[in-house]
Amino acid sequence: MIDLLIEKLRSVLPDDRSFLALHEPNFQGNEWQYVKECLDTGWVSSVGKYVDLFEQKLVEYTGVSHAVAVVNGTAALHISLLLSGVEAGDEVLMPTLTFIATANAVSYCGAIPHFVDCEFRTLGLDPRKLATYLAEIAEVRQDECYNRQTGRRIKAIVPMHTFGHPVDLDPLLDLCARYQIELVEDAAESLGSFYKGQHTGGFGHIAALSFNGNKVITTGGGGAILTNDAELAKRAKHLTTTAKVPHKWEYNHDAIGYNYRLPNLNAALGCAQLEQLPGFLAQKRTLAKRYQEALQDVPGLTFVTEPDFAKSNYWLNAILLDETEAHRRDELLRATNEQGIMTRPFWTGMHKLPMFADCPRMDLTVAESLEWRTINIPSSPFLGGRHDEA
Amino acid sequence: MIDLLIEKLRSVLPDDRSFLALHEPNFQGNEWQYVKECLDTGWVSSVGKYVDLFEQKLVEYTGVSHAVAVVNGTAALHISLLLSGVEAGDEVLMPTLTFIATANAVSYCGAIPHFVDCEFRTLGLDPRKLATYLAEIAEVRQDECYNRQTGRRIKAIVPMHTFGHPVDLDPLLDLCARYQIELVEDAAESLGSFYKGQHTGGFGHIAALSFNGNKVITTGGGGAILTNDAELAKRAKHLTTTAKVPHKWEYNHDAIGYNYRLPNLNAALGCAQLEQLPGFLAQKRTLAKRYQEALQDVPGLTFVTEPDFAKSNYWLNAILLDETEAHRRDELLRATNEQGIMTRPFWTGMHKLPMFADCPRMDLTVAESLEWRTINIPSSPFLGGRHDEA
Ligand SMILES: Cc1ncc(COP(=O)(O)O)c(C=O)c1O
Ligand SMILES: Cc1ncc(COP(=O)(O)O)c(C=O)c1O
Repeated sequence: MIDLLIEKLRSVLPDDRSFLALHEPNFQGNEWQYVKECLDTGWVSSVGKYVDLFEQKLVEYTGVSHAVAVVNGTAALHISLLLSGVEAGDEVLMPTLTFIATANAVSYCGAIPHFVDCEFRTLGLDPRKLATYLAEIAEVRQDECYNRQTGRRIKAIVPMHTFGHPVDLDPLLDLCARYQIELVEDAAESLGSFYKGQHTGGFGHIAALSFNGNKVITTGGGGAILTNDAELAKRAKHLTTTAKVPHKWEYNHDAIGYNYRLPNLNAALGCAQLEQLPGFLAQKRTLAKRYQEALQDVPGLTFVTEPDFAKSNYWLNAILLDETEAHRRDELLRATNEQGIMTRPFWTGMHKLPMFADCPRMDLTVAESLEWRTINIPSSPFLGGRHDEA
Repeated sequence: MIDLLIEKLRSVLPDDRSFLALHEPNFQGNEWQYVKECLDTGWVSSVGKYVDLFEQKLVEYTGVSHAVAVVNGTAALHISLLLSGVEAGDEVLMPTLTFIATANAVSYCGAIPHFVDCEFRTLGLDPRKLATYLAEIAEVRQDECYNRQTGRRIKAIVPMHTFGHPVDLDPLLDLCARYQIELVEDAAESLGSFYKGQHTGGFGHIAALSFNGNKVITTGGGGAILTNDAELAKRAKHLTTTAKVPHKWEYNHDAIGYNYRLPNLNAALGCAQLEQLPGFLAQKRTLAKRYQEALQDVPGLTFVTEPDFAKSNYWLNAILLDETEAHRRDELLRATNEQGIMTRPFWTGMHKLPMFADCPRMDLTVAESLEWRTINIPSSPFLGGRHDEA
């Protein structure tokens, strides 16, 4: 099976490269022009026209009303949680299968991650299983949700759109309304992904994007906060720019703030990248389609496709090993990586990491199974061919 | 006096500019080349040769054994405090006259700033006055220092080298040894400043640099942690890179970590800027000398010069109004800014800001006086003339 898989992967991938990364950035648009302009004018730092332009373009592209550019996705999550009223001692629901940043951001608020199981269809949080669980453990008192078992407030939930595949948001929104829990979307991986026709990141209270080097578009390091609430956007800008009160020369600050600004230099890169996003997405869909076709006859695995309610950006392509093949995961990882085809397993479930081992959790059977069966394969846009060919 | 001051400032400053900022960056070295290389090779993000090179060059320049590049000076301070063992509920001593980041970073640790008075000579923390104060309020029990008045542990002290002028470190080091307090240098403003021949940032446990757009050199946004302790440097790198445990493909993390990496793109800028640092410093010394000469006959003020134990980078030039002229501060700020000569007062004392108003403090008479009497004037390197002329 492993040999056949490698053969099929090779049939999709170009043969002129000795190493294929999971996701490489591509800078063939206006990157150099915009970046050079920053250097030539001296506007490289925390103020500059590219920061404003990047925010404006994110708004146009996603259809979410406000975007605040920040230094990375982790910072975006941190501020999103603070602005959702998450306080020390609260619990925040999140899938156990996510990148560490989701859980870390909760910790920065002094709050406690509470781990939720995932579903096979989306690889993300399972809203139906969560409904059953909340019916058991949660109660609403005076418009706030409490965990009956720990006595702590459950303030927010952070669904994460894994590898770009949107979670099923409608039932989740129902749950949030019923239990008075704030929805904070971790959309770090889902720029270019739509749920029922609407871009991810606009469904909840507030959301976080990431433009890390391995994402669909990159600013070197970067992120953004998205929200449809003008007041929240204003507070996000304020908190991420040291909470300085505007004044011609005086330095007054009215809250504990952060230096989470995205430098203009990085925003310039982002503007050029956003222009190319539709092209990247088309290439990525082509690549996913080719993988799907090539892998359909490989026994023992399934290529992960977008759920039927969503259009995914296919950020990272993934294969799901059958239960019976799960024990061969590491063998498969070794063989592919040795041959220069980069592959990677799912993240380790957050509940297994030492600093989160004591956090509350529901039954995590599906996540535990997914963790051993999911493998990412090379997903750079260029692997889908030139856009005009695609 | 204000008219004469403006006339004298004009005699030093070029007359072909309608607006002179406080500190402008200058990109006339290899910035283009290095940044373009990042774009051409695709290495813009969290790994890349410029990050390593930048760290190595910082070590060479400062003579401090280890440097860890991070996303900004605030992040550098945050991690420096964590690595000095600052925990929730501890107190951290710092001058009340500092940029907000110093106090914010303490808050991120859940600790409490404890404000110390400044001295005229350095504009920074006054070690002699602090000695008298600690004799009154502090006691050492089992190798740890406690504030007798609040019962809290005093874990660290953060001297800040204001505008690049080093504080008097020797008596401070004595105090730290006597009271078992960790010394964390906020060297955000003092790259290129030396105390008794040795670069700032190497005297205490650990130190923070900033490469914000207004600093002596800039990376757009950026900072670094400096330390002479190899083990600390390793932990700083680990904590600032999400505390990931190295593995070929597995995602394990062994602590609550941060995404505080400096992107390679920004590090590339830093490498080019560091090459020009000696030139910038020469220009800045020339400018300071010209200011000093031009302003010596203006009654009612003194130009701030480096303390005799130090060589300052003269990051921001400053004038100190006489007591009798302090009431004219805002008038002076208005007149100069209206004429396109940017000036700025000292920061508002941290103890006056709402979120720090309840923090412990000593008598702050000198700081309160300095706050009303200190004004920064344009300090960009190019104002000192071309380097080869300088
Ligand atoms: C799910 C998820 N959340 C958060 C982040 C954090 O983003 P960043 O790396 O930009 O801090 C990432 C990406 O790294 C991510 O994949
Ligand atoms: C004294 C001081 N500390 C800390 C910082 C924070 O650095 P940064 O702006 O890079 O976060 C600065 C500069 O802005 C500063 O002047």
